[in-house]
Amino acid sequence: MKRKCLEGDGCPVARALDVVGDWWTLLIIRDAFAGVTRFGDFQKHLGVAKNILATRLKDMVEQGLLQTREVGARSEYQLTDKGRALMPVLVTLAQWGQAYTEPEEVGAQVLDARSLKPLRKVEIVAEDGRVLGIGDIVTQMPGA
Amino acid sequence: MKRKCLEGDGCPVARALDVVGDWWTLLIIRDAFAGVTRFGDFQKHLGVAKNILATRLKDMVEQGLLQTREVGARSEYQLTDKGRALMPVLVTLAQWGQAYTEPEEVGAQVLDARSLKPLRKVEIVAEDGRVLGIGDIVTQMPGA
Repeated sequence: MKRKCLEGDGCPVARALDVVGDWWTLLIIRDAFAGVTRFGDFQKHLGVAKNILATRLKDMVEQGLLQTREVGARSEYQLTDKGRALMPVLVTLAQWGQAYTEPEEVGAQVLDARSLKPLRKVEIVAEDGRVLGIGDIVTQMPGA
Repeated sequence: MKRKCLEGDGCPVARALDVVGDWWTLLIIRDAFAGVTRFGDFQKHLGVAKNILATRLKDMVEQGLLQTREVGARSEYQLTDKGRALMPVLVTLAQWGQAYTEPEEVGAQVLDARSLKPLRKVEIVAEDGRVLGIGDIVTQMPGA
């Protein structure tokens, strides 16, 4: 499937997907948050072919989501601030996956580091502090 | 790029991406939130080939993200509850895109319907109400 490049698109959702829309990217980010830094460990966790993983990691470094650090003879991949800022996307994706896909058993979890308890369901909040339901939100398209 | 099917995977992020990981899916969801219901309008907004759009919409109906409704001689696509529940994912993606990708000009926006003002930045909150920074969160992998 050919991807239309939306880089520079007026819509921030489209621009975000242009960077993180590849299916592997968010799984790599997820693993990086869980402390994975080495090529071989990403490969083991993701069950992905070496050439695909190598391309993806290279792209993610170029996009500024990851940075490499030489540790002895080995490269380690670490999240940049831009990559770490994707945490809310992972949390909302995980909460949606938990609610709407099988199995309901708990898998990878994002937890509060202090209590090791699950997080609250993410709330969408208006500027004045009201918690918004889906019906309280409108989307405006560019040029609309 | 061959996708490894993660349906049934223990990780809710992976399961969510198995449903919404295709680049077009979230753009279609975004358009549906903005009120787009007709095939031709999705096509016009997304600039996507008819056959790709047709396949994607069909998949999304099968996955329960959209439902079709016959209006006269025409089919309309409407978000299901499962599809509408992706709003927090779109909001966090848009906020990340706004912060970390060019251009900084405002494009499509998700707004509070009452005030038509932008939403607050999504916060990640612990069970006891503490607002968490990225360093306050730990990710546990399945089986870890």
